[in-house]
Amino acid sequence: MSYHKIDEQDYTYFQSVLKRENLLYGPEIQEDYSHDELSGTNAYPELLIRPETTEEVSLIMRYAWKKEIPVVVRGAGTGLVGSSVAIYGGIMLDMIRMNKILELDEDNLTVTVQPGVLLMDLAEYALSHQFFYPPDPGEKSATIGGNISTNAGGMRAVKYGVTRDYVLGLTVVLPDGNIQNLGGKIVKNSSGYDLKNLIIGSEGTLAVITEAILKLIPCPAHSISLLIPFGTMEDALHVVPLILKARTVPTALEYMSRQTILFSEEYLGKTFPDTGSDAYLLLTFDGSSPKQVQTEYEKAADLCLENKARDVYLVDTPERKDSVWNARGSFLEAIKASTTDMDECDVVVPRNKTAEYFTYIHSIARTLHMRIPSFGHAGDGNLHIYLCRDDMETELWQKSMQEAFRLMYQKAQEFGGQVSGEHGIGSAKKRFLLESLGDTQIQLMKGIKSVFDPKNIMNPGKIL
Amino acid sequence: MSYHKIDEQDYTYFQSVLKRENLLYGPEIQEDYSHDELSGTNAYPELLIRPETTEEVSLIMRYAWKKEIPVVVRGAGTGLVGSSVAIYGGIMLDMIRMNKILELDEDNLTVTVQPGVLLMDLAEYALSHQFFYPPDPGEKSATIGGNISTNAGGMRAVKYGVTRDYVLGLTVVLPDGNIQNLGGKIVKNSSGYDLKNLIIGSEGTLAVITEAILKLIPCPAHSISLLIPFGTMEDALHVVPLILKARTVPTALEYMSRQTILFSEEYLGKTFPDTGSDAYLLLTFDGSSPKQVQTEYEKAADLCLENKARDVYLVDTPERKDSVWNARGSFLEAIKASTTDMDECDVVVPRNKTAEYFTYIHSIARTLHMRIPSFGHAGDGNLHIYLCRDDMETELWQKSMQEAFRLMYQKAQEFGGQVSGEHGIGSAKKRFLLESLGDTQIQLMKGIKSVFDPKNIMNPGKIL
Repeated sequence: MSYHKIDEQDYTYFQSVLKRENLLYGPEIQEDYSHDELSGTNAYPELLIRPETTEEVSLIMRYAWKKEIPVVVRGAGTGLVGSSVAIYGGIMLDMIRMNKILELDEDNLTVTVQPGVLLMDLAEYALSHQFFYPPDPGEKSATIGGNISTNAGGMRAVKYGVTRDYVLGLTVVLPDGNIQNLGGKIVKNSSGYDLKNLIIGSEGTLAVITEAILKLIPCPAHSISLLIPFGTMEDALHVVPLILKARTVPTALEYMSRQTILFSEEYLGKTFPDTGSDAYLLLTFDGSSPKQVQTEYEKAADLCLENKARDVYLVDTPERKDSVWNARGSFLEAIKASTTDMDECDVVVPRNKTAEYFTYIHSIARTLHMRIPSFGHAGDGNLHIYLCRDDMETELWQKSMQEAFRLMYQKAQEFGGQVSGEHGIGSAKKRFLLESLGDTQIQLMKGIKSVFDPKNIMNPGKIL
Repeated sequence: MSYHKIDEQDYTYFQSVLKRENLLYGPEIQEDYSHDELSGTNAYPELLIRPETTEEVSLIMRYAWKKEIPVVVRGAGTGLVGSSVAIYGGIMLDMIRMNKILELDEDNLTVTVQPGVLLMDLAEYALSHQFFYPPDPGEKSATIGGNISTNAGGMRAVKYGVTRDYVLGLTVVLPDGNIQNLGGKIVKNSSGYDLKNLIIGSEGTLAVITEAILKLIPCPAHSISLLIPFGTMEDALHVVPLILKARTVPTALEYMSRQTILFSEEYLGKTFPDTGSDAYLLLTFDGSSPKQVQTEYEKAADLCLENKARDVYLVDTPERKDSVWNARGSFLEAIKASTTDMDECDVVVPRNKTAEYFTYIHSIARTLHMRIPSFGHAGDGNLHIYLCRDDMETELWQKSMQEAFRLMYQKAQEFGGQVSGEHGIGSAKKRFLLESLGDTQIQLMKGIKSVFDPKNIMNPGKIL
């Protein structure tokens, strides 16, 4: 692909229509904007723009369209697969200035936000108005725009679903600068092809999201977590389908190994309530009354104790909650800190296959002599697996990593799973997406991409 | 568009590869297959085929693709907008033989079905295994394939969402006969563009659905309905946002007028518990314990009584439940029986706009001297509005109907609503979809259609 390189004339144009303080050109662009959190992809945009309004985004896209300049949208840069890296240079839209919560509509239970709002800020805002925004990805400093672009899932997907389930409407700017509203403050829609759901999860390759109408729900008044130790990973994961079948609906159902917890203890410098067992489940239950929550968690606790759980710890004090959930939230960073380099895989498999899948991962680790720590959203079959380089030499690391990925994605497919549960494809997982979905689906996706973006200027080189 | 007309040679081919009993050719095709339940569109297919397997569908599509024969998929024919009418002739795929429930997976809480399974049969099957399939459109004898193709919503969308929210995976046959699996037994997915959600609601214009993996949830153990009379429509609808804001989550929240109830009494020959008031709300609450359900419904009942409700009737005996919900289920048929001809509109508007919207409809009825009964899923802003011909002459009826539609869709758009909440677009609402979404979105949809179906053989003339 050959794109127009940004020159002084382009820069002069943008200076004439945008505030100077919202433009960073060439060497003004900091190193931080050349990569994301993990993918290993490195490239600088030629011009970084911080738009303030939908209209500014439209104006920028119209110019980029005319001149054939690639455009990459960046939220907080917390992605893991390279989606927000400007691998073809061009313009980076940094959405940091579009970070306003525009409206809380209590009648329709919606909140309208700009894409640069951080997940943690939205969650807190909702709570402060006694509402609840359920999606809860581990990375709280990600933006909502980023969450929508990868259809982020998180811990509470077991009961409440993923980001997609909370996006009622989107304002988007198409590659040619055209502004469109998709969906709205409505909860049913059967009016033509679902363009909104096509944009969700498209990693900035089809359009720029400039506003989102999100669904809120009443805040559950009570919640409690249980930390449950087991002798082995198999014992812990064996009980997961039993809990889900037992007509209890946990909000979250996470699996973690002692090894991962120890990394986190070291990383945070804080002790976890218990590290005496090899495997743990962390469950949360919420509801409108303490009695309701108690009925549910007791049922789950009994089930665990009947199925080889060694104990059940109630996580019911603020201190314990912080200790357990902070640890859970730090796993990625903690594992990263434990090694020299790493890459990750976030396959999703049917929930009753997680134990078998982890066993397979352990066998890969042995075969390839690689440390592969993992944890998982056991309640929804979305597993987070980390390949650690440690002291491997470059060539061996590259070779072993590729082989591990190949085996892992192949096995996920064999189990009826998919390449990514919530992190997306970006540039890092393209090959595996092709292998998993096959040529027909990739061709359909390429066709859709061409319909939205015939000049291929929106985040080129990603997903497809 | 010019398509190949089916001739003896084509018929001979299909006889050679399919069972004779699954083929109806020319005059063998009954009148029933020339229309749906309401749209007024009439046309016969040239050949009706009842495929039994995905492979047979693939074989049929390969042939139709090669010969350029249009193909329309039909479920139970209960549609209202002409989606399943073969307006260009060609082949009709009647999915009646593909009506098997293939697998209940209790570990993953999924049921895998063929598209011809009826909604009522699936609901009953799920209940008999203590599971719950929440989508509950009024028309229980529709097929699941039809429900997916229109993204049917129904009564329980307030709490549980719509059909889209329960489709985890689809097997589809593309127009050229290629068989593809989309999604799977997984509850998170961020692996490329969401083709599954594109197929859902596409009314058979992109591919043939031949299998669906649906999500089930644990069956709520207790439920109760409340019938609440109000003096006026405005009073009844005024309380709806208050209920939703009050942190109670009704399963269903329906609005009905006395007039509609009287039609239903006459149609069913059964009395409704109360017809002394002009307007009614019908609410349902469900949950895992009687106490939880009681807490919720008492809160809602108190709110209604503080806001001009005249009374609150508990619908707690099987007889009363039958009486109220059978009446609700019969509204469409009852209104149809009350007039000589009719057409309908199923706009969706923000939930707090329903009263204002109904007031507007009443003004249209007065201006155009037309009887326009209506009822609505008040809890989700999806309104069902019926234009009744009564004794109007043909020309006036056509003119008045078009004018009423124009005004109604214009107002819905003004309120931030959409053309259809759950019935779809078909052939009957195409013009209004274009006016509502505008040319840019329609062009994107046409582009997507071309990507899937460059020969335009899948249900041509629908949606776009």
